[in-house]
Amino acid sequence: MRSLFKKRSKMLGLPPGTLVSGAEQAGEPVLITLIDYDKTQVREKRIDRIEDVFPCKDTNSVSWINVDGSHRVDLVEALGKRFDVHSLVLEDIVHTHQRPKCEDYDGYLFVVLKMLQWGENDFDGEQISLILTQNCVLSFQERPGDVFDPVRDRIRTGKGRVRQMGADYLLYSLLDAVVDGYFVVLEKLSDTIEALDEELLDNPTPQTLHAIHRLKRQMIFLRKSVWPLREVISAIQRSEPALIRKGTRVFFRDIYDHTIQVIDTIENFRDMVIGMLDTYLSSLSNKMNEVMKVLTIIATIFIPITFVAGIYGMNFEGKDSVWNMPELRWRYGYPAALGVMALIAVGMLVYFRRKKWI
Amino acid sequence: MRSLFKKRSKMLGLPPGTLVSGAEQAGEPVLITLIDYDKTQVREKRIDRIEDVFPCKDTNSVSWINVDGSHRVDLVEALGKRFDVHSLVLEDIVHTHQRPKCEDYDGYLFVVLKMLQWGENDFDGEQISLILTQNCVLSFQERPGDVFDPVRDRIRTGKGRVRQMGADYLLYSLLDAVVDGYFVVLEKLSDTIEALDEELLDNPTPQTLHAIHRLKRQMIFLRKSVWPLREVISAIQRSEPALIRKGTRVFFRDIYDHTIQVIDTIENFRDMVIGMLDTYLSSLSNKMNEVMKVLTIIATIFIPITFVAGIYGMNFEGKDSVWNMPELRWRYGYPAALGVMALIAVGMLVYFRRKKWI
Amino acid sequence: MRSLFKKRSKMLGLPPGTLVSGAEQAGEPVLITLIDYDKTQVREKRIDRIEDVFPCKDTNSVSWINVDGSHRVDLVEALGKRFDVHSLVLEDIVHTHQRPKCEDYDGYLFVVLKMLQWGENDFDGEQISLILTQNCVLSFQERPGDVFDPVRDRIRTGKGRVRQMGADYLLYSLLDAVVDGYFVVLEKLSDTIEALDEELLDNPTPQTLHAIHRLKRQMIFLRKSVWPLREVISAIQRSEPALIRKGTRVFFRDIYDHTIQVIDTIENFRDMVIGMLDTYLSSLSNKMNEVMKVLTIIATIFIPITFVAGIYGMNFEGKDSVWNMPELRWRYGYPAALGVMALIAVGMLVYFRRKKWI
Amino acid sequence: MRSLFKKRSKMLGLPPGTLVSGAEQAGEPVLITLIDYDKTQVREKRIDRIEDVFPCKDTNSVSWINVDGSHRVDLVEALGKRFDVHSLVLEDIVHTHQRPKCEDYDGYLFVVLKMLQWGENDFDGEQISLILTQNCVLSFQERPGDVFDPVRDRIRTGKGRVRQMGADYLLYSLLDAVVDGYFVVLEKLSDTIEALDEELLDNPTPQTLHAIHRLKRQMIFLRKSVWPLREVISAIQRSEPALIRKGTRVFFRDIYDHTIQVIDTIENFRDMVIGMLDTYLSSLSNKMNEVMKVLTIIATIFIPITFVAGIYGMNFEGKDSVWNMPELRWRYGYPAALGVMALIAVGMLVYFRRKKWI
Amino acid sequence: MRSLFKKRSKMLGLPPGTLVSGAEQAGEPVLITLIDYDKTQVREKRIDRIEDVFPCKDTNSVSWINVDGSHRVDLVEALGKRFDVHSLVLEDIVHTHQRPKCEDYDGYLFVVLKMLQWGENDFDGEQISLILTQNCVLSFQERPGDVFDPVRDRIRTGKGRVRQMGADYLLYSLLDAVVDGYFVVLEKLSDTIEALDEELLDNPTPQTLHAIHRLKRQMIFLRKSVWPLREVISAIQRSEPALIRKGTRVFFRDIYDHTIQVIDTIENFRDMVIGMLDTYLSSLSNKMNEVMKVLTIIATIFIPITFVAGIYGMNFEGKDSVWNMPELRWRYGYPAALGVMALIAVGMLVYFRRKKWI
Repeated sequence: MRSLFKKRSKMLGLPPGTLVSGAEQAGEPVLITLIDYDKTQVREKRIDRIEDVFPCKDTNSVSWINVDGSHRVDLVEALGKRFDVHSLVLEDIVHTHQRPKCEDYDGYLFVVLKMLQWGENDFDGEQISLILTQNCVLSFQERPGDVFDPVRDRIRTGKGRVRQMGADYLLYSLLDAVVDGYFVVLEKLSDTIEALDEELLDNPTPQTLHAIHRLKRQMIFLRKSVWPLREVISAIQRSEPALIRKGTRVFFRDIYDHTIQVIDTIENFRDMVIGMLDTYLSSLSNKMNEVMKVLTIIATIFIPITFVAGIYGMNFEGKDSVWNMPELRWRYGYPAALGVMALIAVGMLVYFRRKKWI
Repeated sequence: MRSLFKKRSKMLGLPPGTLVSGAEQAGEPVLITLIDYDKTQVREKRIDRIEDVFPCKDTNSVSWINVDGSHRVDLVEALGKRFDVHSLVLEDIVHTHQRPKCEDYDGYLFVVLKMLQWGENDFDGEQISLILTQNCVLSFQERPGDVFDPVRDRIRTGKGRVRQMGADYLLYSLLDAVVDGYFVVLEKLSDTIEALDEELLDNPTPQTLHAIHRLKRQMIFLRKSVWPLREVISAIQRSEPALIRKGTRVFFRDIYDHTIQVIDTIENFRDMVIGMLDTYLSSLSNKMNEVMKVLTIIATIFIPITFVAGIYGMNFEGKDSVWNMPELRWRYGYPAALGVMALIAVGMLVYFRRKKWI
Repeated sequence: MRSLFKKRSKMLGLPPGTLVSGAEQAGEPVLITLIDYDKTQVREKRIDRIEDVFPCKDTNSVSWINVDGSHRVDLVEALGKRFDVHSLVLEDIVHTHQRPKCEDYDGYLFVVLKMLQWGENDFDGEQISLILTQNCVLSFQERPGDVFDPVRDRIRTGKGRVRQMGADYLLYSLLDAVVDGYFVVLEKLSDTIEALDEELLDNPTPQTLHAIHRLKRQMIFLRKSVWPLREVISAIQRSEPALIRKGTRVFFRDIYDHTIQVIDTIENFRDMVIGMLDTYLSSLSNKMNEVMKVLTIIATIFIPITFVAGIYGMNFEGKDSVWNMPELRWRYGYPAALGVMALIAVGMLVYFRRKKWI
Repeated sequence: MRSLFKKRSKMLGLPPGTLVSGAEQAGEPVLITLIDYDKTQVREKRIDRIEDVFPCKDTNSVSWINVDGSHRVDLVEALGKRFDVHSLVLEDIVHTHQRPKCEDYDGYLFVVLKMLQWGENDFDGEQISLILTQNCVLSFQERPGDVFDPVRDRIRTGKGRVRQMGADYLLYSLLDAVVDGYFVVLEKLSDTIEALDEELLDNPTPQTLHAIHRLKRQMIFLRKSVWPLREVISAIQRSEPALIRKGTRVFFRDIYDHTIQVIDTIENFRDMVIGMLDTYLSSLSNKMNEVMKVLTIIATIFIPITFVAGIYGMNFEGKDSVWNMPELRWRYGYPAALGVMALIAVGMLVYFRRKKWI
Repeated sequence: MRSLFKKRSKMLGLPPGTLVSGAEQAGEPVLITLIDYDKTQVREKRIDRIEDVFPCKDTNSVSWINVDGSHRVDLVEALGKRFDVHSLVLEDIVHTHQRPKCEDYDGYLFVVLKMLQWGENDFDGEQISLILTQNCVLSFQERPGDVFDPVRDRIRTGKGRVRQMGADYLLYSLLDAVVDGYFVVLEKLSDTIEALDEELLDNPTPQTLHAIHRLKRQMIFLRKSVWPLREVISAIQRSEPALIRKGTRVFFRDIYDHTIQVIDTIENFRDMVIGMLDTYLSSLSNKMNEVMKVLTIIATIFIPITFVAGIYGMNFEGKDSVWNMPELRWRYGYPAALGVMALIAVGMLVYFRRKKWI
């Protein structure tokens, strides 16, 4: 089951700005890639020594430095030093349990958000930290594997506007890719909800309840990841014009719309999941009602006629008194007794029919 | 069942501003109509070549270009180019899963909203995209069939103010027609709610639950379509005066009031539908209670007297001991036994009457 | 049952500002009264020809023109023309499904609100449209019968301030009378709630549920009528000083306080009605519990002892084997069997007593 | 049961500003006390003729005029006239169903709030109306008996700051005493909640439900009394500096904090009371479950073995056919039958143990 | 069970600003420590006479005076006098039931918040009062034992920035330590939730309900402690620049983010705990359903066949009439009867299988 809370005990008590990796993947290899482009050319390479990316800061082309492994304190620190990044920002990059936020520093913009990717039958969240400077975008991921391949393709092939525009448009493209990823997750969840909904009306089982429960948790997680994004995009739009140019702002308005759409959809899903629980309970009550009706019909028909049979199973001695069960010696006693029983049974059935139980 | 989420996987990963149709009706024919009018005359024609509408931009009369088929990327692109529309706007027109919104661009106003139409026994939502320029209104619909016929009639016959006023009043007339359509949907839903409500109190069945469930979904969909409209109308009212003239603003205030009324009604309906679920559950509990009472009454009357019959069905040998069931040999043993049973039954009935169960 | 939604299909598709009566009382007679007063004198008369009220506009005295029958399109139109009222305002007067609102036009103030009157055992809502000009108040009601008699009396007798002050104070007096009417409705509802509450704790029946259900609907209706009033009064207070004089504003603050009080009370009532439903359900569960306990006690006492009786009703042949039911031939077999049964019954009773079921 | 709504029919239809007593205590004696003090001396006396307090207005010392009996229209009117109080204010003093509020008039400040006092096992609410002028505080109570004794003591003995400061500090002291009274009520309610909570988990009865119900009503009443106080204190803090001096404002900030604390606590209590209802329902379900289990265990053990006994109670004639119940004539038929029954019973018990029912 | 409300009756009625200890630990020893540091040196000592800390006020180094025992009225008063602290502030320090708040006074800043520490299996809340002057931080705790040891270590060893910066940074460090403490509590609660969640799905018992109940209370308490903190931090950030230097503000933004994260997590936990209650109720209903099914299956199979056995247990005399139970004398009467019973039983089983009950 998805854990809703990332432990951070390890780092408690340390001085603020201390970089201690909060991730468990400490041993995993780290991949650093650099894509450097302008209108005319693209240069893409894998970086082994972090110092190799340092010159990017002073070129005129747009540089995108992507680090797959934000737990590598040394790399983050080295990059941070080179790009004059505040130590609290570096701390936020390394400790990947941040709430999405956008912070405006002197000369750069720091954006944290959650990238969601759909795995087998659940989605997976990962913190993406982005730093936008005049002509560079630094992106830090927890693990290799991301939703940025379409952006890379567009840079390589020169499709769309990305090569014509600056680092701010690159930031926009990355955010847009992340938000597009949310839509994929929503689609998957929408499928799950539709399936569950049908199951609910057809044949709900305790497993259905577990599935609803699970869905609810996913909703809570999703909401936590996406809600703050609205403020993040607003903050980017309000940030100083030196970094986000006027022509790019309209694109952030577009992401803002998408974010609102995602949030609306999550809220609607939440409403539906809550409704599902009500339906589940109603359907349980319905089933119980049906079970009770069957029991009641069977019992109320047979209990009285079994009593009649019980009467004539009594052993009162006819020899001792003519008052003792003379029916037993009547010519048509037995058929009469059966007839009485049949009458009672039919009467009960008519009664239940009137009550609309059968 | 209504799907709450329009899939958009097809377009993920494409550069922003790329026009890929999100609709399935790709093969359907497209209808373009042009209505061009001023105070003195009306010209209405069906357009086959998109280029035929281009001159409208430069005339003094008001032109309404309506495209039934927003999935036709080529047409949208051609019109967009001619009217200098931003590529993000064109993208929003083609991908018909937008949240209602109003965006103010240089020289034109872009409005997206949902047009609802009542079909057989459900309503149908369709995205309407409207572009208002100085003297033109461009409207894009997903499918043929709309709520604008009264507006067309008024233009043709010159009833009302529409021919006296500009393109902004035409935009108002179209929005007004869409909001009027909401009232039709609300009326139908109101009928459904009244009917369900009566059914609930008379004889609720599991089908009633499904109907409530369905109503709830419709509410969620409706809300999603209408809520953002409030901000949309506000945004239009606040937009630059070049496009919306002062004299027309009072009319938008009128639409605003209608929108608030629609939203209020939806909220009230929601309250009622939630209340219906509670009533349904209470009524289930009531029924269960009644079933249980019948069972309990029958069982608690017959179980003790069946036991009495059972006693005298025992085979203890009177020959071996005078202690063994002497009652069987009494003169009035059988009538006495029947009397005891009758007493028990009557006692139980009195007890239940006291408890107000019968 | 109260309908929550007034149909308006008739008027859909008409040009805005078209006056088509939304009311069904089209044939009913219309009553127009004029009260014209200043500090020294009062003139009150019934008007037959609408033209007779036209001179009021130009006098110095305060005139109150009351029309009982806002569905009479011709009258509304004639008055509207004379007093230079916008056609959208006239439309709102005729179509009596408006949300309470206050609109500030050039030279006059337009206020719509709901007047509630308690009938047999439900209240009745009616739209009141008020137009305040420099020295006139025009009031439009749907039907004869209103809550304004105390105001009329005060004008006639010169009690209170009304004769000393202008048309704005008259508007205040009318609004005050309407809000006072809300308190009457709240009192009646409060009585209903108290009665239901007692019934709930004493002996809830399915009728109680219906009553709660009905109360809830009344609450929704009431809320819908009163909530917007807060903004209405605020808007009047903020309106241009030419119409509402400074000395009158403090009185509107008083109405504002009353409105808040009404809204608070409605919210509290809502809370209580929701609580009643919970209590109803709990009380159903309690009853079910009691029914089940009775059944269980009777059944669990008699089922085992009936079994014992069943044992000794078996026909195993003692002649064929001494192992076959020797108890039947014991001297104290029967008393012993009865004793065993008594023991079982007492044991069960002790067990239930321990469980605190009896 | 606490009535949530004070009837006011008596005064409906009267001209605004008319003083008609809304209280029933019309015949009760009225107590007027005057405390007049400055740094050096205190003068305290009981007033018989209202005119005796009139000179206070023009002295330099601080005067506190307290009227126990706001229903005495004549007194309120006389004081109002002397202190130039608006007739709407006087109306609010007499009609004691006001929502707490603070109104800023020329030359005086008018504050209404609710004083809560804990009685036998419920609290009692009373309206306190306060008028602050330059050097006087007028307080109006519905009944004798209040929470102001500590303030009186402090004035008499000169403890604390009250004698050093002006009428504004006296107003603060009175408000502070009222808010302190809320804490007493909260403590009592807190005790009730703790007690109920324990009862709920130990042995909930229908009485527990009534108690929760009652608590909920108290919460609603409390909330209604306290919520508006926040705005009241804010309004006092924002009021014109002539009446509330700068040095006193910090004290009102203190009351503001206390009010927030009271509101927070009420909200927490509400949460807990709602939670209690859930617990109550769960606990009912738990009990029902237990009852059902006992019934099911007894029934499912004995029904099958009673059937076995029933089989061998049949009277098929062994004389007529060897196929007819040969078991009855077997040597160990009876022990075998008993053995089969025992086996069935043990099997059932094992089954229930596995299901963890016993 | 955690008490949600700290009694304060003792202090009611006292003049504002009176210092009466609200705590019960009146007899406990009090520990005062002073840490005095600048960039070059640290001086740490235990204080016996409160006068020993007085000189700190006038030095240039940063002084942190920590008092473990805010109930010691004399100490608080002495310190308050020396540092010119308002008597209301001193009152708030002594009465440890304050809502977290930040108050800006002339020359110092007063901050109250709750320090949470995890004990055995519950957390413990304690009020921390902090006063920040130009170069001093005064901290008051209710009891010895706190979360500040890491801060002390950092001061002693000179790790991090704390020694380089002023008293404002020390205040930040203390607040940061407190907020870090919240994360520890959240982690523990997260563990409890996960454990309960598993228990809920596996085997819920009434104890589970109690545990959920307890968790809910902890949530309410936690929320009450943390919610106001958001405003507190905002208020600190907005406070006058003389106390909080510009360079330190960015650190408070960091705490603000953490606080938002804590609040978000609490809200998510709350959602989950509410969901747990629903799951618990559903799971109870499921269990009841299962119990009812077992009962119904057993009863409906055996009741009819027991009736058949009852029929043939009747004693109608075959000697008196050939109509009286001739079956008893048939050759295969007994096997036929058994066959009929088997048929009925199998029929029932098939029926239940179809209903998917077994």
